[in-house]
Amino acid sequence: MAKLKVAILGATGTVGQRFIQLLDGHPWFEVAALTGSERTAGQTYAEASRWVLDTPMPAAVRDMRIMSEDAALDTPLVFSALPSKTAGVIEARLATAGHIVCSNASDYRMDADVPLLIPEVNPEHLEMIAVQRKQRGWSGAIVTNPNCTATAPTMVLRPLLNAFGVEKVLLVSMQALSGAGYPGVPSYDATENVIPYIGGEEPKVEEEPQKMLGDLVDGRVVPANFTISAHCNRVPVLEGHLVCLSIGLQRKASLEEVLAALSNFRALPQELQLPSAPPQAIVLREEPDRPQPRRDRMTGAGMAAVVGRVRPCALLDYKLVTLGHNTIRGAAGGSILNAELMYAQGMLQS
Amino acid sequence: MAKLKVAILGATGTVGQRFIQLLDGHPWFEVAALTGSERTAGQTYAEASRWVLDTPMPAAVRDMRIMSEDAALDTPLVFSALPSKTAGVIEARLATAGHIVCSNASDYRMDADVPLLIPEVNPEHLEMIAVQRKQRGWSGAIVTNPNCTATAPTMVLRPLLNAFGVEKVLLVSMQALSGAGYPGVPSYDATENVIPYIGGEEPKVEEEPQKMLGDLVDGRVVPANFTISAHCNRVPVLEGHLVCLSIGLQRKASLEEVLAALSNFRALPQELQLPSAPPQAIVLREEPDRPQPRRDRMTGAGMAAVVGRVRPCALLDYKLVTLGHNTIRGAAGGSILNAELMYAQGMLQS
Amino acid sequence: MAKLKVAILGATGTVGQRFIQLLDGHPWFEVAALTGSERTAGQTYAEASRWVLDTPMPAAVRDMRIMSEDAALDTPLVFSALPSKTAGVIEARLATAGHIVCSNASDYRMDADVPLLIPEVNPEHLEMIAVQRKQRGWSGAIVTNPNCTATAPTMVLRPLLNAFGVEKVLLVSMQALSGAGYPGVPSYDATENVIPYIGGEEPKVEEEPQKMLGDLVDGRVVPANFTISAHCNRVPVLEGHLVCLSIGLQRKASLEEVLAALSNFRALPQELQLPSAPPQAIVLREEPDRPQPRRDRMTGAGMAAVVGRVRPCALLDYKLVTLGHNTIRGAAGGSILNAELMYAQGMLQS
Amino acid sequence: MAKLKVAILGATGTVGQRFIQLLDGHPWFEVAALTGSERTAGQTYAEASRWVLDTPMPAAVRDMRIMSEDAALDTPLVFSALPSKTAGVIEARLATAGHIVCSNASDYRMDADVPLLIPEVNPEHLEMIAVQRKQRGWSGAIVTNPNCTATAPTMVLRPLLNAFGVEKVLLVSMQALSGAGYPGVPSYDATENVIPYIGGEEPKVEEEPQKMLGDLVDGRVVPANFTISAHCNRVPVLEGHLVCLSIGLQRKASLEEVLAALSNFRALPQELQLPSAPPQAIVLREEPDRPQPRRDRMTGAGMAAVVGRVRPCALLDYKLVTLGHNTIRGAAGGSILNAELMYAQGMLQS
Repeated sequence: MAKLKVAILGATGTVGQRFIQLLDGHPWFEVAALTGSERTAGQTYAEASRWVLDTPMPAAVRDMRIMSEDAALDTPLVFSALPSKTAGVIEARLATAGHIVCSNASDYRMDADVPLLIPEVNPEHLEMIAVQRKQRGWSGAIVTNPNCTATAPTMVLRPLLNAFGVEKVLLVSMQALSGAGYPGVPSYDATENVIPYIGGEEPKVEEEPQKMLGDLVDGRVVPANFTISAHCNRVPVLEGHLVCLSIGLQRKASLEEVLAALSNFRALPQELQLPSAPPQAIVLREEPDRPQPRRDRMTGAGMAAVVGRVRPCALLDYKLVTLGHNTIRGAAGGSILNAELMYAQGMLQS
Repeated sequence: MAKLKVAILGATGTVGQRFIQLLDGHPWFEVAALTGSERTAGQTYAEASRWVLDTPMPAAVRDMRIMSEDAALDTPLVFSALPSKTAGVIEARLATAGHIVCSNASDYRMDADVPLLIPEVNPEHLEMIAVQRKQRGWSGAIVTNPNCTATAPTMVLRPLLNAFGVEKVLLVSMQALSGAGYPGVPSYDATENVIPYIGGEEPKVEEEPQKMLGDLVDGRVVPANFTISAHCNRVPVLEGHLVCLSIGLQRKASLEEVLAALSNFRALPQELQLPSAPPQAIVLREEPDRPQPRRDRMTGAGMAAVVGRVRPCALLDYKLVTLGHNTIRGAAGGSILNAELMYAQGMLQS
Repeated sequence: MAKLKVAILGATGTVGQRFIQLLDGHPWFEVAALTGSERTAGQTYAEASRWVLDTPMPAAVRDMRIMSEDAALDTPLVFSALPSKTAGVIEARLATAGHIVCSNASDYRMDADVPLLIPEVNPEHLEMIAVQRKQRGWSGAIVTNPNCTATAPTMVLRPLLNAFGVEKVLLVSMQALSGAGYPGVPSYDATENVIPYIGGEEPKVEEEPQKMLGDLVDGRVVPANFTISAHCNRVPVLEGHLVCLSIGLQRKASLEEVLAALSNFRALPQELQLPSAPPQAIVLREEPDRPQPRRDRMTGAGMAAVVGRVRPCALLDYKLVTLGHNTIRGAAGGSILNAELMYAQGMLQS
Repeated sequence: MAKLKVAILGATGTVGQRFIQLLDGHPWFEVAALTGSERTAGQTYAEASRWVLDTPMPAAVRDMRIMSEDAALDTPLVFSALPSKTAGVIEARLATAGHIVCSNASDYRMDADVPLLIPEVNPEHLEMIAVQRKQRGWSGAIVTNPNCTATAPTMVLRPLLNAFGVEKVLLVSMQALSGAGYPGVPSYDATENVIPYIGGEEPKVEEEPQKMLGDLVDGRVVPANFTISAHCNRVPVLEGHLVCLSIGLQRKASLEEVLAALSNFRALPQELQLPSAPPQAIVLREEPDRPQPRRDRMTGAGMAAVVGRVRPCALLDYKLVTLGHNTIRGAAGGSILNAELMYAQGMLQS
């Protein structure tokens, strides 16, 4: 069967590069168009991009020509690695023109009619597309994936909320350098240092999870009713956001029940065997000193949420540590998995 | 006036090296004896120690002979950089023999009759020495300084507790490599990584602050009545423990009141102009991205507690970030300041 | 066909772990025995080893019992990850008892009757085994692979020596932390630093290449007739030894000829399609800033020698930079490729 | 006596910041003017600069207003931290107008009538100013300091050339991140990596030392007659360029003679007791593993050339390692010492 042709918006940046890397050899999707700024339009991808990933640039894209971001695309599915703000207008135009846009940008994430999707967490939120189309008159649609820091904690909260309810979350992140893009954080700042601040990050982390964990009522999300307080820090790690969580539950739960909820978690992408779905959405580590970003970020090919150090908290109920690969599951891989879910559910056709 | 002769126990380790570095040229104290393991006894300090600090080994100690840790000392003041467990017996023997032992080890910290001292926080706890002597029949005494991670947060909590009361503290540390001593953390573990676990650290951080912030009633400490929950992490930073705190207060306080309490804090060591006291015990940074370990750890010659990012917390009342130099204020420098306070108060004579 | 059963000596260390990682799923060899110190003998591998690699411990070895290093082995092929000195006696005993020992240790490397082997460089040196057996009365044999730093430069020198002769080599290494084993270099030394010294390394790098590049005359190696001067440095990189070389040739050669010699290099392991042979033994990079350790060390699954920045040298003839993965091609992978060559040539039978 | 008023061109960049840091409290010079780009002109220094050094911004400059780089200055002495190319026109205009410009830029370094000065190496080259003024009709002058990587090796070569002559130098650098300015090298490139290339660096390192070590004949420099071949690498170190050198001498010299030449070196800045001169220009380390960038870069307050690992070279005569602080001695500090020499010799008046 012919593969579905896809475009990548903002293909030369670091998230764009991850899309290209992850889509290389994809069983369902085939990269057919790449867009970039006016400056790079017309160049080959090899000329236009400064490839920074640690695997070689896939041969299939080397000689593809970069299109302007305003070019008309003829691919049914579009992955957007555009920066916030730039994304808004371009993605809307494509959705108007009938494209399904799986976007990593933050512009539409919190809009009431736009799914903020993690297939293991809230696959039913795709129903919001009907509302979106009706309200906006679009024949296409925009589906977003969350902030890279919010992703793994939200996955880990899913079974806890299901089983025990969640009331409070105190969250402290230690985020990787790649989260700032390229060139991103200067090495003169990052070396042998921690920067206890990431502009604009804490508000996203404090509000996106509740939307994803919310119930869909009449096509609208009722956000999950708990409060998050976040401290976000940048640490000298290349990839992988480590997050310390203290969690207050609604109902009492023993440590065994909590561990069981985490390790027994099963979800739709695994059931559907989506190509990018990790074998286990949540991987529970039992060693006292795991997960570690460098050693565990590639769990499930970078698509799993890894959790460890689950233990009682003297203030709330439980403490634990999560790890997610920020540019795979937390960015490009998350968008791709969203598209795979839509494809598997017949919402995309070639 | 002749300087007071002091000994350093465990002088060849990293904390011992810091004692030597910080006591070089000290106006009141003069290093007169160094102890080490049986293996190094008899060697010169230059032979026995693998000097790892970034300033040169002081000339005054190069040719001093290492004494066995069991040797009789004739210095009234003894600084202990011994590892926990080793410290217990040796320090007790010295206190019995009339020495004042300022110890960085954890063995006696939580004993009911042993001061756990930060001169800016609880100078009056030195009164416990009378109880200690009476109960143990010692002519000397043991005075301890807290865990390196607990130090800066406790200093910052002092004015908050004074002004508003403290009810709850959620604490997440990002601790420097030097905290593990030498050789300490293998570079193969620490490079481009975070280790979300430090053996034995969280319990100390969760109980030492309340003792220091407690009131002295009839010679005994009534611990401050609040709960701490700690997550401790190791990050690839050489020196300086950065700590994210969420703090619940007993009484409502505006952000301005909190900032004022922090920046107006005055304490005894500054009033007494103790030689190692930083000009300001608490230094408040107003930039959004400070304190940073590498850039701010030497504030007040490594003796200040730096605090920044003070802002409301959605769960508790306020969030902030503290930084303290772990091997200066959090170890050797803390012990020296304790001794300076005792000296200034006439508790030590040459 | 049944796989050949192999043992790994010193299986719990970092090189031992690489052997286990690389042999997992090997098409010809199957790990059947693991040895360790007296202390770990009898434990399972999961109990005995502190696994430090970034991929999970293979399931096949988790429950294997560690044997004492003095145990009698019944595997025809033995891989040795023993430290130098320990290796000497144990490897000799196994060779006496009829085992083929592919050793990563340095003890026998420079012995006149022991092959120091890189299959792309000097496969014919395996003929030395006949001499070895005759002289030592062994029914087995010892075959060694070179020092990790010497490996990639020697591979790159092979075609240059063939085509133009080599007269002089000035070599400056920037070596990865993993080369020091585990725990190896303390993070307190390695962070934000370079250590311009590695004990015992420079002599090995200065004499091993000439043996490998030498001609075999009557079963004995006549070392290649050129001089190497080496400076060895440790840099804060996890894996991958980067080496700057200035090379004086015997015959004039144009830059084009040099580049052609490097990129046209073909060798026996590729011809024989040995399982661990990289598609190309030497990979030539043309970008001005490659190879880089982190980005290029996994070229050819960590088995290729990567070379770049080939340009004229004002003092000797050409300058270039080589990169080799020090614990794959430079250690365990090198030994395995040596065994594969012997297997393919019928020198090993199950 | 009133201090000499000085201006700093390009004051907001990293080299500009070093000038400000090093001139704070200077006994002879007082910062009276700061220039920056059109964009920052009119702002206070605190507003205009993103201070990146690890010591606080000196209070004296916080509220100074940035002048446009085209502004007329009324300070007799001007320090230039301008980038190459920008520097050319501006520095010439200031020299025409009678200012002494001590420049860190590369534009004029190799001009036949411009001193390329290290006060310990070639103080007599200041005589070239007479030629410069005559040829260019300037009433002021431009005096340059060398490339940061060339500085320490040139200082170390001075006594060797004096005593034994120098014929050949093979040089491999491991350069700090700060050498690339700010933001400079992205952390995503620099972390756990080495970049074996620095644009434009090798030619400078290969030709500047000979000019500095050349003799002045009739007001013109006859470059020292030896060849340098350089490999330049970027390593994840914040400050301090480490350089491996292999040196061929003109006359035979024993190791003792070489060590004596290095340790007995005395030079004019030390004799004149220039404020920024290190106590010893060349500091010889005898430990096998020194100098190390992090531990030794502050030798002589960052103004000394540190040398170690002096040993025979199998190819040339001797091998050794040098270290110099690249943004102190190799940039701002070097310029300041040049100005101090001119001041001490009466070439500058307030």
